[in-house]
Amino acid sequence: MHKEILENIGEKELINRLRKFMPKNQISDDCALIKTKKDNLLVNNDSLVENVHFNDISICPQDLGWKAVVSNISDLLSSGSKKTIGITISLILPAKTEWIWVEELYKGINKALKEYGGIILGGDCSKGNEKIISITAFGLQGELELRRNACKPGEIILTTGIHGLSKLGFMMQNKINFNNNVFLNEKLISKSIKHFCRPQVYPNFLKHLLKTRSNKKIKRIGCTDSSDGLFQAVQDLAIASNCKAIINYEKIPKDKDWPKGDKWDEYYFFGGEDYELVFSLPKKWANNLCKIDKNINKIGFFASGKPSIEFKEKSKNKLLQKSPFKHF
Amino acid sequence: MHKEILENIGEKELINRLRKFMPKNQISDDCALIKTKKDNLLVNNDSLVENVHFNDISICPQDLGWKAVVSNISDLLSSGSKKTIGITISLILPAKTEWIWVEELYKGINKALKEYGGIILGGDCSKGNEKIISITAFGLQGELELRRNACKPGEIILTTGIHGLSKLGFMMQNKINFNNNVFLNEKLISKSIKHFCRPQVYPNFLKHLLKTRSNKKIKRIGCTDSSDGLFQAVQDLAIASNCKAIINYEKIPKDKDWPKGDKWDEYYFFGGEDYELVFSLPKKWANNLCKIDKNINKIGFFASGKPSIEFKEKSKNKLLQKSPFKHF
Repeated sequence: MHKEILENIGEKELINRLRKFMPKNQISDDCALIKTKKDNLLVNNDSLVENVHFNDISICPQDLGWKAVVSNISDLLSSGSKKTIGITISLILPAKTEWIWVEELYKGINKALKEYGGIILGGDCSKGNEKIISITAFGLQGELELRRNACKPGEIILTTGIHGLSKLGFMMQNKINFNNNVFLNEKLISKSIKHFCRPQVYPNFLKHLLKTRSNKKIKRIGCTDSSDGLFQAVQDLAIASNCKAIINYEKIPKDKDWPKGDKWDEYYFFGGEDYELVFSLPKKWANNLCKIDKNINKIGFFASGKPSIEFKEKSKNKLLQKSPFKHF
Repeated sequence: MHKEILENIGEKELINRLRKFMPKNQISDDCALIKTKKDNLLVNNDSLVENVHFNDISICPQDLGWKAVVSNISDLLSSGSKKTIGITISLILPAKTEWIWVEELYKGINKALKEYGGIILGGDCSKGNEKIISITAFGLQGELELRRNACKPGEIILTTGIHGLSKLGFMMQNKINFNNNVFLNEKLISKSIKHFCRPQVYPNFLKHLLKTRSNKKIKRIGCTDSSDGLFQAVQDLAIASNCKAIINYEKIPKDKDWPKGDKWDEYYFFGGEDYELVFSLPKKWANNLCKIDKNINKIGFFASGKPSIEFKEKSKNKLLQKSPFKHF
């Protein structure tokens, strides 16, 4: 027991064990929550580690700065943040790092903040053997609490945008060869690289949700982001909300040039870093929302049952055995 | 210019450059400040990097967890936090890390929180090549704003506790040899190791300050902590407040068994990680405070002049040339 190492525990089990050290009344979600007299603050931290989450070949420092901010804001939005207050930046950098690299990183950080709101509140820098960018972002909790554990059987599962593009962009940037000699459209390639290097988020999401709410009594919605892939997002919702997700493969929104085949389905469902929002709503609300926001699609529904995912199209269920997740 | 590397810039200049990316109205201090409608929150992040800030030989994981919390709470206290709300923990760990190491780390974290207040609000864990413990701590800004830039000429410089012990503890734990064959008292050794492994902070500091305030109109006080050593703390205050510090060598509180000699003065002034508070007060207030808190000592005063430090005892000024600071 004492010699048990993290590699053999796995990330999800590790997080479960760490949660036992937290007080029981703390939310365990995309963000931490700080209650003050008037406002509730959402807090999120994301660390990007060189050679684990990025490398100098696949992403330039300005894009990395942008992406580090966006990955944090995505978590704030997926918890219902109505405004990004700001961020603190903790850098760990080798002594041989060039100043221009740091300057470019900060330029990217400030570009993302200019686009999505928020300021740099503070930061520090320490020496280390590998580059690490750790950003803590602060948001203001809006009227709707978006939480992983708030999905209900009968609700429609929805997602913003399309998935898999960031994974393709990552492979392109790292010059990873494709086993299958598939033809990739130039437009798809450049769009994918943009998705990987400069991902976008949806600051209007909360506004659209509030505008289309059919029942004002509903204050909590099941939601997370797809930073670890669409499959992982749906699974996290199913587990936290204790229900079963039925995904309609035919309804999954794909890029019109996205190739067909199992490998490409895998990239789509398990790719990660797309920072799309994955959530569930009562049917009427879901319909209203899709009418005013063409970027949002219905992809399935939640049912009563043991936390799990299955496809409506039974033949597709083999995909679900392919989970490539192994962060440790 | 483009090939300029961090090693050749130095930590202080690097921090100055990074500050230029922050909005001008942001405080640049031990903590960042978040203003909400009712309360102001103090936020601090400290990252401990393996083989830079710690190693497995010098400190056990439970002590490391304690120390990571204390170093953050020390920054909150030195900004005038009246209550620690909680912390978020971001871990980066190699895949081969043993679970027991993580468990012990968290035990130490929770022991420190139990002692000084605050809860674990959230956290995450990523894979990396070296262990990094990055803690973000949240405190509630009290009535008195403690800031680096609030010292005034004529004020008395004070410090809690005594310095140098943590440095000696670090050397003991790392079995660093002393050039001079000095006799070290057993009590001093064990006290030093305790200071290094389980540093303490002063939760009653703010209460004592408020109790002894001679003039209720004073809302801001110059203060920082000695996490980077007593010399660095005084220098940070002098630079941020634009005044000159005169230190009275004879008044410096030392452990009764602390050896004499230049080397030992160096450990004392430049050691770091003692987490004592270094601050300045009007004379009357300083006298009142020292009467009720025997742990606090007057060590000098601030005067008008270019930001600098000198000893009242001119012969000691050679010490100040010895700054061993080089974080990059």
